[in-house]
Amino acid sequence: MSQSVAFIGLGAMGYRMAAHLPKHFDTVYVWNRNFEKAKQHAADYGTKAVSLEQAVQADIIFSCLPTSTDVETLISSVEIKSGAIWIDCTSGVPNSARALASSLKQLNIDFLDAPVSGQTVGAENATLTVMVGGDAAAFERALPALQAVGKLIKHVGESGAGFAVKAVNNMLLAVNLWSVAEGFSALKAHGVSLNEALECINASSGKSLVTETIFPQRVLSREFPVTFGLPLLAKDTGIALDLVKQAKLPAPLLSLTQSLIQAAHLTAEDNSDFSAAVKMYEAWTKITLE
Amino acid sequence: MSQSVAFIGLGAMGYRMAAHLPKHFDTVYVWNRNFEKAKQHAADYGTKAVSLEQAVQADIIFSCLPTSTDVETLISSVEIKSGAIWIDCTSGVPNSARALASSLKQLNIDFLDAPVSGQTVGAENATLTVMVGGDAAAFERALPALQAVGKLIKHVGESGAGFAVKAVNNMLLAVNLWSVAEGFSALKAHGVSLNEALECINASSGKSLVTETIFPQRVLSREFPVTFGLPLLAKDTGIALDLVKQAKLPAPLLSLTQSLIQAAHLTAEDNSDFSAAVKMYEAWTKITLE
Amino acid sequence: MSQSVAFIGLGAMGYRMAAHLPKHFDTVYVWNRNFEKAKQHAADYGTKAVSLEQAVQADIIFSCLPTSTDVETLISSVEIKSGAIWIDCTSGVPNSARALASSLKQLNIDFLDAPVSGQTVGAENATLTVMVGGDAAAFERALPALQAVGKLIKHVGESGAGFAVKAVNNMLLAVNLWSVAEGFSALKAHGVSLNEALECINASSGKSLVTETIFPQRVLSREFPVTFGLPLLAKDTGIALDLVKQAKLPAPLLSLTQSLIQAAHLTAEDNSDFSAAVKMYEAWTKITLE
Amino acid sequence: MSQSVAFIGLGAMGYRMAAHLPKHFDTVYVWNRNFEKAKQHAADYGTKAVSLEQAVQADIIFSCLPTSTDVETLISSVEIKSGAIWIDCTSGVPNSARALASSLKQLNIDFLDAPVSGQTVGAENATLTVMVGGDAAAFERALPALQAVGKLIKHVGESGAGFAVKAVNNMLLAVNLWSVAEGFSALKAHGVSLNEALECINASSGKSLVTETIFPQRVLSREFPVTFGLPLLAKDTGIALDLVKQAKLPAPLLSLTQSLIQAAHLTAEDNSDFSAAVKMYEAWTKITLE
Repeated sequence: MSQSVAFIGLGAMGYRMAAHLPKHFDTVYVWNRNFEKAKQHAADYGTKAVSLEQAVQADIIFSCLPTSTDVETLISSVEIKSGAIWIDCTSGVPNSARALASSLKQLNIDFLDAPVSGQTVGAENATLTVMVGGDAAAFERALPALQAVGKLIKHVGESGAGFAVKAVNNMLLAVNLWSVAEGFSALKAHGVSLNEALECINASSGKSLVTETIFPQRVLSREFPVTFGLPLLAKDTGIALDLVKQAKLPAPLLSLTQSLIQAAHLTAEDNSDFSAAVKMYEAWTKITLE
Repeated sequence: MSQSVAFIGLGAMGYRMAAHLPKHFDTVYVWNRNFEKAKQHAADYGTKAVSLEQAVQADIIFSCLPTSTDVETLISSVEIKSGAIWIDCTSGVPNSARALASSLKQLNIDFLDAPVSGQTVGAENATLTVMVGGDAAAFERALPALQAVGKLIKHVGESGAGFAVKAVNNMLLAVNLWSVAEGFSALKAHGVSLNEALECINASSGKSLVTETIFPQRVLSREFPVTFGLPLLAKDTGIALDLVKQAKLPAPLLSLTQSLIQAAHLTAEDNSDFSAAVKMYEAWTKITLE
Repeated sequence: MSQSVAFIGLGAMGYRMAAHLPKHFDTVYVWNRNFEKAKQHAADYGTKAVSLEQAVQADIIFSCLPTSTDVETLISSVEIKSGAIWIDCTSGVPNSARALASSLKQLNIDFLDAPVSGQTVGAENATLTVMVGGDAAAFERALPALQAVGKLIKHVGESGAGFAVKAVNNMLLAVNLWSVAEGFSALKAHGVSLNEALECINASSGKSLVTETIFPQRVLSREFPVTFGLPLLAKDTGIALDLVKQAKLPAPLLSLTQSLIQAAHLTAEDNSDFSAAVKMYEAWTKITLE
Repeated sequence: MSQSVAFIGLGAMGYRMAAHLPKHFDTVYVWNRNFEKAKQHAADYGTKAVSLEQAVQADIIFSCLPTSTDVETLISSVEIKSGAIWIDCTSGVPNSARALASSLKQLNIDFLDAPVSGQTVGAENATLTVMVGGDAAAFERALPALQAVGKLIKHVGESGAGFAVKAVNNMLLAVNLWSVAEGFSALKAHGVSLNEALECINASSGKSLVTETIFPQRVLSREFPVTFGLPLLAKDTGIALDLVKQAKLPAPLLSLTQSLIQAAHLTAEDNSDFSAAVKMYEAWTKITLE
């Protein structure tokens, strides 16, 4: 396509996502705070490592940063091309999306919150799920760019709705992770074979992505590969709880889960995978889930 | 096969499970407290409706009753054939299985706890998952009979292990059901489309059988079809919590879930499906999940 | 004293608190949205019912309103006398106190958050506890006015600290109320005499103001007198939880309590006393605490 | 009095309780597993150190042991005098009391569950609170002996009721301890002075024995004196939860508290005071409550 596109933030996800763009767009700018990474990306995939000022002159600008605060800071520091669409793939804060969309609208720029799911393997294969909040017309215009990186791409509501769905998804991941740890520790204490139990549950009503892949591949294997950090899961459960709070809803189970994940985060070793949250529980029970 | 087999307890599950046995066994006895059902089964499937005394003279005896107490009462009232295997498909209590297995062993009878998962549709199609606890040799001898009703059949440990896995499975079902209700109420309060959100989550890390089938088919559809009663789910979460307690483990998330499901059960209309537990939460929030 | 003083907000607490001021100050203005109440107060206690504009010309201005939002709205609508001290007795939001203190400081006005505890009887007898946040020098200057309405008057920290202590106090009240309801329902289910149990606990390590007065006088008596509304307790537990959240702390017990109180509030009859929160629990258990 | 009395179990509580008996009874036997302690008691207070066989020939027999299991084992090993009253001051299990009372009744022996509250200082001064379950006539006969060690002595119901009240009391202690830790950590994170906050709360509706004495004397002082061990509090919260479970009640707050206390117990240093449960929470938050 003749549109120009930029990708800002070449972390584990962004680096892989941006790699697909040259197949669909003639001009692909990349920028990263550590600029060496941008240059490496250009060398690897034929993108152009440019200054931030130039990147935000693209027609479509992706961002994928650790937090909404990072996105706010970055956007406030640049002058974005009028008429551009900003697609923010950060797992961010719904209120921040609403505020950014509203203020950018004044400058004739559309802002879509478009967090992704599917881990690095999904980014690698362009099979990410993208949940998008924001203006419906902007969503339609952004669709070709989104399709370059994702497979299931859904417009889930107004600004902030994408971030909201992502936060709830990750909260459910946290609930499942912790509850499976509790349940399987009880089974182990009673002498049950965890692998056989897992197989049964995966053919039954208690199954989840956690029982199907997270638990066997990360926990029972004792590998805890660091692909999605525990601090990020803690942040996301906090975002989900803010949604609950803003709506003045009681949410006993999600609240408790957030407290447990936050405690696990505060007591975890640096650079822990989210799945390592179960280690705090193991420290209580002295039962190793293996 | 020339072995005789009996099926005791022709409820929604048992009636369908027993229907498969005549394809594999020459002699199939059935018995039910309301004996009309046994006679109907004989007429429908070519089984033999017999007295309880005769049923327990079979080589292999299945039972599928509401609770372990029912099984204990029934077993204490009859004289079972020496050398028989009793396969109890009730969602029962691990301690009860251990006690029955131990006392029946004295009489040269094997007792396997063999709860099933897969709902009535799985019973209909003989595709149930069966999680079996008890003596390994007895499990091998029982396998052909188990294969007549199930697809995935696993020996998960000593006596009680089958019941334990089933209880934990159902506890995880309860956790998922309630947490999805909380999360989706927050999304709805923020104007997010629940069906689109569900589709995203089902392609993401927060997915579970609850998000894939239970929630769309039972809750969002407002159908709450009564295939697995809420009192039974409340009972099963209680069994899971007993496992936790016997092992002296802390289990904050499972404990809270059990309290919520028990409260939902105590306040539900008679004859509610387990999925109707979310109605208590809806009564708090005034948000209908549809 | 020759200082003038004003009292804004003549609710159940404010009406009684303002009644003590003429004993200590020559000029006492009162104002209330429903102005008839202000006129009645002037007739009853020799205060002066004046316009809001005049009230805020006093040297010391008390406010006692339902929420911090009410205080913010009111303050933003008037021109307060330079050099005045504003003493806000609302059970308010710490962040709001910080913002008001900071912006009023620009106008040479001191703002103290000074929530009170002690119910209407404490207001009547000028025996309230007052927990004060804000500038230490302003606290010293405000002390004579505070002593007119309270007995124990403490400077607990910077702006917002008074509101924070009040919110945590009310959260602990909520925790105690709900946990006593759970514990006593279990005792009643086991045939224990609740009055005798209460007497024992009040001489033991489990005692609290809830077991000493709230439970016997409001719950077991079935009176639930409406002196402190359930919506206000729900608001205060929310404020306490915001403190937790801003500090990024896990707080499983407070979080759960807030969810339960919020659910009780959402399902309660209009105009319920805070103690009526236990009615939601009674609806679960079918056990009446009497 | 001319009745003989025995005291079995001279731990921190029992040693001090038994010291009062010679003032009221002519014959006072004492027995302890480590018999040196019994001899020391005899030397200190004029009691008689006798064999267990002789001790159980007294008219009134006190026991004060770690757990109900210890009491059951001991009782099953001896032949108690017909017509005797056994007063068990252990913090025990209601079901155990019911079973012992029922089987001893066959032998014309009354069994009262009579746990005490008031710590070692209450034992020292004979000002304990005694909550008694069991036969009302036996209670009346036991009253003079109970009055020798306690001040407030209440018959709270049938067998097991005394243990039930004690368990709920200690559960409330646990709830208060943990919730104050959460609330005060939030206050400290916001720069509030904890001692001033405590003083305010102790004059307000959130007060409890925990805020009045436990927290200032044991936690904020960083002393954690070992007068009531954390394993015993964990045991007692478990007993309270069993009451809940037997009555099939939901109890979200008590269940969560029990999980937290159990986790704190499992991760605590050996020989920790119950108040040291807050150290697990401090390990999460990195905030020291001082």
